[in-house]
This record gives sequence, structure tokens and C-alpha cells, in this order.
Amino acid sequence: MREKSLEYHSLHPKGKIQVVPTKPTRDSFDLSLAYSPGVAYPCLEIKENPDLVYEYTNKGNLVGIITNGTAILGLGDIGPAAGKPVMEGKAVLFKKFAGIDVFDIEVDAKDPDDFIKTVKMLEPTFGGINLEDIKAPESFYIEEELIKAMNIPVFHDDQHGTAIITVAGLLNAFEINKKRPSDVKLVVCGAGAAGIAIAELVQHIGIRKEHIFLVDTKGVIHTERTDLNSTKQKYVQKTNARTLADVMQDADIFVGVSVADMVTEDMVKSMAPNPVIFALANPDPEIPYAVAKKVRPDIIMGTGRSDMPNQVNNVLGFPFIFRGALDVRAKHITLEMKLAAARALAELARMDVPDAVSLAYGGEKFVFGPDYLIPKPFDQRVLYHVAPAVAEAAVQSGTARRPYPGRENYVSFLEGLMRS
Amino acid sequence: MREKSLEYHSLHPKGKIQVVPTKPTRDSFDLSLAYSPGVAYPCLEIKENPDLVYEYTNKGNLVGIITNGTAILGLGDIGPAAGKPVMEGKAVLFKKFAGIDVFDIEVDAKDPDDFIKTVKMLEPTFGGINLEDIKAPESFYIEEELIKAMNIPVFHDDQHGTAIITVAGLLNAFEINKKRPSDVKLVVCGAGAAGIAIAELVQHIGIRKEHIFLVDTKGVIHTERTDLNSTKQKYVQKTNARTLADVMQDADIFVGVSVADMVTEDMVKSMAPNPVIFALANPDPEIPYAVAKKVRPDIIMGTGRSDMPNQVNNVLGFPFIFRGALDVRAKHITLEMKLAAARALAELARMDVPDAVSLAYGGEKFVFGPDYLIPKPFDQRVLYHVAPAVAEAAVQSGTARRPYPGRENYVSFLEGLMRS
Repeated sequence: MREKSLEYHSLHPKGKIQVVPTKPTRDSFDLSLAYSPGVAYPCLEIKENPDLVYEYTNKGNLVGIITNGTAILGLGDIGPAAGKPVMEGKAVLFKKFAGIDVFDIEVDAKDPDDFIKTVKMLEPTFGGINLEDIKAPESFYIEEELIKAMNIPVFHDDQHGTAIITVAGLLNAFEINKKRPSDVKLVVCGAGAAGIAIAELVQHIGIRKEHIFLVDTKGVIHTERTDLNSTKQKYVQKTNARTLADVMQDADIFVGVSVADMVTEDMVKSMAPNPVIFALANPDPEIPYAVAKKVRPDIIMGTGRSDMPNQVNNVLGFPFIFRGALDVRAKHITLEMKLAAARALAELARMDVPDAVSLAYGGEKFVFGPDYLIPKPFDQRVLYHVAPAVAEAAVQSGTARRPYPGRENYVSFLEGLMRS
Repeated sequence: MREKSLEYHSLHPKGKIQVVPTKPTRDSFDLSLAYSPGVAYPCLEIKENPDLVYEYTNKGNLVGIITNGTAILGLGDIGPAAGKPVMEGKAVLFKKFAGIDVFDIEVDAKDPDDFIKTVKMLEPTFGGINLEDIKAPESFYIEEELIKAMNIPVFHDDQHGTAIITVAGLLNAFEINKKRPSDVKLVVCGAGAAGIAIAELVQHIGIRKEHIFLVDTKGVIHTERTDLNSTKQKYVQKTNARTLADVMQDADIFVGVSVADMVTEDMVKSMAPNPVIFALANPDPEIPYAVAKKVRPDIIMGTGRSDMPNQVNNVLGFPFIFRGALDVRAKHITLEMKLAAARALAELARMDVPDAVSLAYGGEKFVFGPDYLIPKPFDQRVLYHVAPAVAEAAVQSGTARRPYPGRENYVSFLEGLMRS
């Protein structure tokens, strides 16, 4: 894969995205509209009514994917330039799945306040900001401050994206194993951006905070720990459990956002009946799918891998969350919008899967159940389910600056968009 | 034109540019190269060898057009959002004429130091920076500081672009009227970004500083003035001339970068024999072409208008200057590169014009002379003349980080680029 990937990236034109005109540029008349002197008219209109920037420019369809390079994929702090392939790749996904234009912006600023100030000043450029691959705990502070400071949606996908898809999967796991969210014990292994966001979001589907156990590289996060940052401190539990093995006993759900092979067969054995394991470490999960399934045939299991059932893949979230948010011009991405996205995904997985989706996956059949909890990324219905749910939730939660056009109108708009 | 322009801008997709993938994205295998897990390989390569960011990403073909909205076209300080249509329009021109990708970046920062800090931090994103529509005199300071701080070319087009095309026209005016640059008296009306850059650059084709008279809104810039910023102070002259009319007497060349109708018939009459007027105010020149020509049939005249002879249009410069600079990975855009661009343009105007160019202009014939000093924007030869000259000058002036491939190789590269 290394050779293929390097070739893919370096073939002319180098990199993965380009910028192209959307309007005719055949002759000097066209250019006199696109640029001087004709361009003065939209400028003056926007000056009079700032909202018209959404009418005469690409702002309303443009997301900035912005990183400082401090936590690129699983590779760590490799710097903003080395992170550029990831940001361009994400731009490709935004366009492919939701027709959203992306400028990838790599910022040379490790200091969170410098980074915040820079992103804030870019507000006139973008319709929304997708923060990407920024190391925790700085990422929490950065996102929080930017949400306060900006009038366009700011979303740290590494946190909320993963949390939303995980919650979608959990909602359907509960459908299958008939457990009540308020009864379950959840272990989250990894207390970085994603882990914390998962621990936060699951509370809104009924999992009780006192049943959520976070584990970081030092073990269980408990009341006696003196080495915790303020974010982790919110999740201390009074418990005697110290290791992951301790806390896995009788757990109903394990969500891993850590590294490969954290989970042993014995740990899986010690879990409660009908357990759920979402082992999301990339590229290799906390425990291989086949191993966990062999030890506990009653398991419901998901990973981050595309070659295993129940792939928890952020691409099921961010394109459609931004699509919905942009189209009703949401000021923020609210909790309600995140939950609406998770619920829409869960609902879609419970529907019959058309042949077109099977065809995209070599004829594989998908039927709702332990091995198909979550829609597949190449299921084109996802856009038409999730974006409307998010847009409607934006309107209902009071953050939208435009009315929801109704599902039917909105879906035809989206269909037109994806055809063009 | 107002209605047509607003319609052009607001037709779906709104605005003038979009971002599209350049590599296949048909199936999950393609996406596993474009994004996780395959994308990790180019990231790691770049981490080991930072120069490879030019191999595996679009950085080497990507220019940031960056403004703070303080001097948009002739419209003044209308703010960054209202400037967005202009920046998108310029992105269209970069792509159309030189195949360069552009992200337009509108920065909400009036304070020059805030602006500088922000642009500096965006360095990992771009291969070059085109500063645009920033008000003087701050623009001088901003450009100067960014050139010092950054390792990629930074170019304020409003200054140097106009100066380069003007110099190209003047070189050919000298060919025609056989005046010696060292003898001529030059009046520059308008002492903003463009005026100062013109006064600077013309000295490098032999016009003597003591023969250059700048005029601003208060009149001639002379030694008794007490209201001058440090940039204008460099151009004070010891003279009794106080008004534009005073200083136009016996002037050989007038270059206007001011506003419509500054120049009267009497002023034109008072100029030296075989005078040159470049009246570049947009959309209406300092004096109409027909009026100046009637008063002085011996005149050589250029304007900023596409419907008059000798259009001084920046689009003859910036796309090709950046093309040449990017392709040899120039660290800066040096004086030598600017002069090479001007000389290449002048040289091209003295060559026979192929039918294809005439066809693009409704069959009009172009023959070198007083009414055809400067190539036409839709002359596709401009790219193949100017970009190689700039790239070669970059190498010769020691700012290039890659060798010049030779004219023949480079021209075939450019032909391939424009076909794709």
C-alpha cells in the first residue's frame, strides 16, 4: 500500500485537490463579469448587506479544514506540513460525499492562543470550520474558545465525529441486546479528544455518568489520581479498579480510541453478557474482530476497519453534519444536531438496504443485526437521511439563520447538488 | 452590466470557484489511499524530508490570495467579506491563465501586525502568497515584513503587477519614440501602492530618480511638504511645481494610477513632443483615450480598459510570475524576475501576432506600434514567454531552489499543464 499511496499522491497534478472556476471564462466579457469591472457590483451589494456574501460567493459551501499538525492521524505531532496530505484527503471526502468545497489550512502555531486568533481572523473566508488533528487537551480549549468567538459553525471532528458514529452504533446495539442505556456500564479506553467527546455524548442517550469509566495511559481515571487535566477531572470515579482489566469486569460496553492490542481475551471474557466492543484504534483495533468474536460469540463488535463489519467511520458524519449546518446557515453545531445525526444513522441502518449499496460492496448483503449496526460509507442514502435531520435539528434548536425548506424540497436540492 | 454580474455570481453553484478531487475516488480502495490508512505514508515521508510536501501535496501549485479588505478595487475599505468576489475572481484568472490553484483568504485584521502574524502562520499551506487590495501605506510594511519572515514568494500584485506591465509598455514606447530612458521626465499621478511601485521599478530601466515626479491628492510631492509618510518621503523633489498642471509641462511620460478625469486637454498639450500617457484609473481613465489622441496625435497612449488599445492589465503579469516562481520553487520574487517579466512582455509585443490571437479579438489585427505596445490578455503565448523568463531569472538571481529545466523542457511542461 505504501508504494500505491505515494504514487497516488505524486502523480500529476500533485496532491489530491484543485480549484476550478464554476462559471464561464471563455472570453473577455465573461472575465469582465468575474473580475474587474463587473465584480464591483456584488462587492457593493455585500457591503450594503453583509448577508449577501452567501449569495454572491462560495462562502456558504466552503469549509476550512484547519490543523496545527499536533495530532495527525495516529502519527502524533508531525507538524502542519506533514499533515497536509490528511487535510487534502479530508477535503476529498467532503466533496465526494456532500458536495462541500474545502480549503485545507495548515497553521504553524503550536500555541493555542495564536492558533485561536488566526482561525478567528479567517472567519470572513469560510462558511464553517472543521478543526482537525489537534492534540488534546489543547483541542478542547481551542474548540470552546472558537465556538464562543465565531459566528459560523466550528466542529472538531476528531472529538464529535467519532462520538456521533459511536452513539449511532450504540443506539442500534441497544435495539439488539435490549439493554437499557441507564443500566449499562461503559468503559472508554483513551481519554483524548475522541474519548472525552464519547463520554460526553453518550450521556445524552441515557448512559449514566456514574457508569462511565475512562482509562488513559496511566490506568483508570479515579478520584485518587493527582495527574489529571481539568477535562479528565470531570470524569473521575470513586472505584477500586485501577487497570483496564479491573474495570472491564462486568462492563457492558467497551469503546476503544487508543492503540492496538490493549484488550486481552481474558478482559473480553470478564465482560457482562451480550457485551459491546467498539475497538476503534486505527489501523489495528484494540482487539482483533475475529479474536473477540471467538471468545464471546454473544458480542456485538465494531472497529475502525473497512474490511470488518460495523466500521465506525467519521465519513458517515462530518460531510452531512456540515451539509445540514451550511444549508440552514447554522451558527453553531448544537448538541441537538449531533444527536439528530446519530439517530438518523441508526435509523437508516434499520431500513432495508437497496441493491445499489450491495453492488458497491461486491454484492455483500446487509441486514440489520449484530454485524450491520451502522450504514456503509458508500451508501448514497446517508446524505439524504443525515443532512435533513441535522438541518431540521438546527432550526429546532434555534441556531439556524434560514428556515428549513421541508424534507422533500431539501432532498431535491441535495439531489441536484450531487448531480452537478 | 450590474444585472448580468449579479446573476453570474449568484447562479448555482454560488460564487466563482469550487474545489474538486484530482485523483480517482471511485471506491473504498481509492479512498483508503486518499485518506486513512494510506495517507499516513506521504505524511511520514514529509515528516522525514519536509521538501517532499511539494511532491505529495498541492502546495507547489497553490497560491493564497490574501486580503484584509482595506482597498478593494477602486471601492476602498469595504471590508474582507465584501472583497471576497474580487478574490474569487482573481483565483479564476490564476487558473485560467496559468493553471495555478488559489485559495482566496479574507482576513478580518485591520491591524498590520495582526495581519502579518496570521499570514506568516499560514506558510505551511501555500506555495506562494499574493497579497491583494491592501491599503497603502500599510501594504508596504506588510509586504516587506512578510517577505522577510517567509520562505515562499510574497507578492503584492497591486504594487508590482501594475508596475511590471507599465514598464513593459514603456520599454516599447521607447522603442517607438526613440527617447532615451535617462532623458525622460516622468509624472506619476497617485502615490499609493501602484504609484510607488512604478516609481521604483522604472528606475531599473534607466529612468532617473530626479526625473520622477509623484503627485498625490495634495499635489506634487516636493521637499517642502510636511505631510508625507515615509514611503512618499523617498520621492520628494526640489521643484517649484505644485499642481499636476505645473508638473505636466514638458513631461515625456504620464502614468496615472489615480481617478477619472484628473488630466485636462491643456495638460496634455503642455507635455513634451511624442509624449506617453498611461491613464490607468479604472474603469474610467484620467483622460479618455479619444480626447488625448485628438489633442496630441503624436501621443502613445494606454489605459486600463479592455476596449481601448494598450490595455495595462495585471493579468498579463501575476499568473505567469507565480507560475515561473512556483516551478523553480523561488524563495522570493526578486527584482530580476519582475524585470524579466516586463522584458518578456515587451519582446512578445514586438513579434508577429498569430491569427489565433486576432480571432480571439473578433478578427482585429495587431501590429507592433503606438496602438499595440503590450500583448493582449487572451494571447496564449504570454504564458510560454513570461513564465520561462521569470523562472530563468529566479535561477539566475539565486532565489530558486530547483534548477531551470531549460526553455524547451519547461515549455512542454507548461503545455501539458494547460491541456490537463
